[in-house]
Amino acid sequence: MTAWARLGERTRRDVLRARAYLSVVAEPPAPALAHLVAERGPVQAVEAILRDKAPPEVRTEVESRLEGACGEAAMRAADAAGARLVIPEQPEWPAEAFADLAGARSVELPGLAEPLALWVRGAADLGSAAEPAVSVVGTRAASGYGEHLAAEFGHGLAAAGFTVVSGAAYGVDGAGHRGALAAGGRTVAFLACGVDRDYPAGHSRLLQAIAAQGAVVSEYPPGTEPRKHRFLVRNRLIAAMGQATVVVEAGARSGAANTANTADALGRPVLAVPGAVTAQNSVGCHTMIRSGQAVLVTRTEEILEELNPLGVQPAEGIVGRARPTDRLPADAQRLHDSLSGLNGASDAELAADCGLPLGRVRALLPELEMGGFAERGEAGWSVIR
Amino acid sequence: MTAWARLGERTRRDVLRARAYLSVVAEPPAPALAHLVAERGPVQAVEAILRDKAPPEVRTEVESRLEGACGEAAMRAADAAGARLVIPEQPEWPAEAFADLAGARSVELPGLAEPLALWVRGAADLGSAAEPAVSVVGTRAASGYGEHLAAEFGHGLAAAGFTVVSGAAYGVDGAGHRGALAAGGRTVAFLACGVDRDYPAGHSRLLQAIAAQGAVVSEYPPGTEPRKHRFLVRNRLIAAMGQATVVVEAGARSGAANTANTADALGRPVLAVPGAVTAQNSVGCHTMIRSGQAVLVTRTEEILEELNPLGVQPAEGIVGRARPTDRLPADAQRLHDSLSGLNGASDAELAADCGLPLGRVRALLPELEMGGFAERGEAGWSVIR
Repeated sequence: MTAWARLGERTRRDVLRARAYLSVVAEPPAPALAHLVAERGPVQAVEAILRDKAPPEVRTEVESRLEGACGEAAMRAADAAGARLVIPEQPEWPAEAFADLAGARSVELPGLAEPLALWVRGAADLGSAAEPAVSVVGTRAASGYGEHLAAEFGHGLAAAGFTVVSGAAYGVDGAGHRGALAAGGRTVAFLACGVDRDYPAGHSRLLQAIAAQGAVVSEYPPGTEPRKHRFLVRNRLIAAMGQATVVVEAGARSGAANTANTADALGRPVLAVPGAVTAQNSVGCHTMIRSGQAVLVTRTEEILEELNPLGVQPAEGIVGRARPTDRLPADAQRLHDSLSGLNGASDAELAADCGLPLGRVRALLPELEMGGFAERGEAGWSVIR
Repeated sequence: MTAWARLGERTRRDVLRARAYLSVVAEPPAPALAHLVAERGPVQAVEAILRDKAPPEVRTEVESRLEGACGEAAMRAADAAGARLVIPEQPEWPAEAFADLAGARSVELPGLAEPLALWVRGAADLGSAAEPAVSVVGTRAASGYGEHLAAEFGHGLAAAGFTVVSGAAYGVDGAGHRGALAAGGRTVAFLACGVDRDYPAGHSRLLQAIAAQGAVVSEYPPGTEPRKHRFLVRNRLIAAMGQATVVVEAGARSGAANTANTADALGRPVLAVPGAVTAQNSVGCHTMIRSGQAVLVTRTEEILEELNPLGVQPAEGIVGRARPTDRLPADAQRLHDSLSGLNGASDAELAADCGLPLGRVRALLPELEMGGFAERGEAGWSVIR
C-alpha cells in the first residue's frame, strides 16, 4: 500500500483540491510558492494564502488571481475534458524525472521550479512513461529532412522501449510523436495551454492519438490559453522528462535551443542532428555541437548509445565497402599497387617500383598468387582484378 | 648570410645531389634512412649506402633501387620540367611545419618520417608559403555542396592571408585550390607522383595555375607514377604543412579521414564540415565530430577562429531576427503576451491572465504604451503590432 493510499479518501481529496487550487492561482513557474508547498504541504500552503499569511514573495505570485480562483471548478473542467489531476503525492508522479526541477527550485534557477500539479489526458501512467523517456524537439518550420528524421528517431526510440516526449507543435514535435505512435510505442506531449484545448488546432487528431497511446500533459489548468512565455516555461518539463533531449532541427533563434539549454542546466545530455551548413534550420544544431553543448548524432543507434553508454554496444561505425586487398599486410598491398600499375613485370622491376627489397618481393609474389591477386604469365607478373 | 649560402657552391651541389639520390633510392617514408641522414648528413649517408656500410634497416629501404639510382638524372629531369629540388639544408625548407614529422621519425610513428627532399614546381617560396597555411581536403567524389563549400573556404582563407594546401585531386581538393586562386591567394598542391606528371590529367591546367601562383610539390622524384599507397604517404605532408586541416566532405572510407588522423597525430586541429545525415559524403565528417576528433565548422570565420583562437574575435553567432519586444524585461514581455491574446482588456483581466500582481501590471502598462507596444481604448487595453 503506497503512502498515498494510506492517506484515506478524505485527505486525498483535500490534497488534490489544494493542488488544483495552487495550479489555478499561480502562473508557473512559481518558485516561492513551490518552496512554501515543499515546506508546509499543499493544504497548509493554501490556508496560508487564503488567510493572507503567506510570505510576500508568494503573495506576489498569487495575488492577481486570488479572486475567483477555484480548484474544484478546475477539477470539474478537467473531468469534463476526460483529464485528471496528477500530483507529487501520488505514486504516478514522475518523481525521479522531476527531482532536478525540485532541486533547482530554491537555488539559482527559480525559472526551473517544479510544477505544482499536472493535468493529464490519456491512458499512460506518467511515472512509468518517464522511465525511460527521450525528448525529441525542434523547429515548427521543419524541412522535409527534419520531419523525416524526427519521425525516424521517434519510431526507433519507441521501438527500443523509450517514451518519446515532445511538445505537439507542428514540424519536428509532431513528426516525433507520429513516429512513436507508428511504432506502437508510448509518447507524451506537454502543452503550453490547458489539456482541454487542442493546440495547435491542426493537431487535434494527433493529440487524440497521443492521449490514446500515451498522455497529453500540462501544468496549466483547463481553460488556459497558450501564451508565448508559456511555451518557454513548458519547455522545462520536456527537458526534465527526457533522459536526454534530441534536437532535430533548430534555427538560430528557436524554442528548441531553449529546451536544450534547460536540459543542459538539468545535467541531461543534449544530442543534436547536423544538416547542410546552408540550411537555416540547422544553424541552432551546429551552434550547440560546435560549442560542445550537444553531441552530434545521425542515427537512432547513436542516440541509444548516448542514452546508455554502458549497457549498449557502441553504434557500429558506418564503414565503406571493404576491398579484397584490405586483409593483405601493408607491404603486400604496396606490391599489389605496383602490380596494378605495371602490366607484366619482372620481380626486379616490381621491387624497384614499389621500393621493397627484392627478397621480400619474391616472397610476397607467390602469396599474392595463391590469394588470387596475381598471376605469372609469359611477360612476367600481372594483377588479377 | 644563411648557413646554406655560407656552405660554398661546391658543397651545396654535393648536398643537393646527395639528397636527390636519397629521394630516388628509397620509397618514402623511409624512417631508417631519415634517421641515418639526421645523424650523419646526406653526403655521408649516401656514401654509407654506396659502400654497403649502412645499417641493415636502411639497406632494406634502398636495396631494390640501388642499381640505376641517379640523383643527377633526377635533377636534370626536374630541370626539364621546370622544377627544382628543395632540401632541409636550404632556408626555403618549411622547417617549422615539418618539425613534427622530424620528431615523429624515430619514435612510434615511423610512417610519418619527414621527407628527405621535395621537388617543387612553382614560384612560391615553400617556407613562407607554410606560414600561415591551412589544409583543405575531402573526397574526390564531392557533391555540389562539398565543392561549393571547398571553394568558398579556399577563397576566404586565401583572402585572410592563409596558403591553401591540398592534393590537387578532383572534387574537394580542386575546389579548394580554385577558391584560393580566385582570391588571388597562394595555394600549394602535394602530389602522389612526380611533379612532371599532370595528375589527375583533367587538372593539368589547374596544376599550371597552382604552380604560377603557388607551388606544386612532391617528395617523389620526376617520373614517379602515382600508386595507391603513395596517396596515403603523401597525405602526411598535407597534414603537416597546414596549421589545421579542414575536412569538407569525406565518406566513411576516405583518404581525407587518413589526412585527418595524421593531422591529429601531429597535434594539428582537425575541423570538419557537417552535412545532411543522409549524405554518404558527410559520414566521415560526422564520425570525426562525433568522436571529438574534429571541431564542427560551418563558415570561414569559424575556421579562422579555430586557427587563431587568441588573436581573432570569436565568430559572431548567427542570430535570428530580433523582435522589438526583445528589449523588454521578462514580466513586461509576459504582460505583452496577454495583451496580444486578449483584445481590449482591463488591467485586472490582464493581471489575472498573465499572473502578475495588479500593481505591477498597472506600472507596466504605461511603459508599454510609451514604448508603442500598447494602447488604451474604450474597450480597455490592446496591443499595437
